[in-house]
Amino acid sequence: MDFSFLDKLKYDANGLIPCVAQDAASGEVLMLAYMNKASLKESIEKNLATYWSRSRQKYWTKGETSGNTQEIQEIRFDCDLDCVLIRIKQNGGAACHTGMRSCFFNKLTPQGLVEDGTSVFSPEKVYGKKQ
Amino acid sequence: MDFSFLDKLKYDANGLIPCVAQDAASGEVLMLAYMNKASLKESIEKNLATYWSRSRQKYWTKGETSGNTQEIQEIRFDCDLDCVLIRIKQNGGAACHTGMRSCFFNKLTPQGLVEDGTSVFSPEKVYGKKQ
Repeated sequence: MDFSFLDKLKYDANGLIPCVAQDAASGEVLMLAYMNKASLKESIEKNLATYWSRSRQKYWTKGETSGNTQEIQEIRFDCDLDCVLIRIKQNGGAACHTGMRSCFFNKLTPQGLVEDGTSVFSPEKVYGKKQ
Repeated sequence: MDFSFLDKLKYDANGLIPCVAQDAASGEVLMLAYMNKASLKESIEKNLATYWSRSRQKYWTKGETSGNTQEIQEIRFDCDLDCVLIRIKQNGGAACHTGMRSCFFNKLTPQGLVEDGTSVFSPEKVYGKKQ
């Protein structure tokens, strides 16, 4: 693997680049998280999405607790090379720590936000606590 | 329209929130850009995606030059309320200023990045200059 492209990408002031994860089969957008150079390299080497958690300030191989790993089928970058799009197989069928299939379950309506998504697992059972 | 949700969203230190634009018909992820509270409100009021351009430091109703506006069909927010997903009708059939249908035309291969996308228009003709 030629990793020289890693130096061409545009990272923000914190060395991060946003990453959109899309279900390769359904096309559903599942989540947006952040990578840095090392986590992107690790994602490729493991073939599993590995992010940098801004809240926990640590590397985070998605699914390391829940088992809901994201197998990478394709990686793309945008025109400005400042965003990653990964097309993945979402193991366990859910990307969100709340147990929802997609993180984007808050739908805007004229009355405000309503929950509109598919619940796949119980976070209490998977993480041992309510998320 | 109840706009009180705008105060619940989490903006970054610059008041921005990333926005993923997805073709509502095909499911293709077309681009990622940034909104702020005012541009998100304007997007809803106009029903056209309006971003904050970080490079030009100005509001930017997508398609104002090219005519390739993005009609919003659905707006969603993620679990943490720090990312927007808009499902849109991409007028003109191309989201990217390079004339490509999607901005994500740089595909990663073992040899590095290769251009892999559909060219819809000539940027020289539309903008009067090469992008």
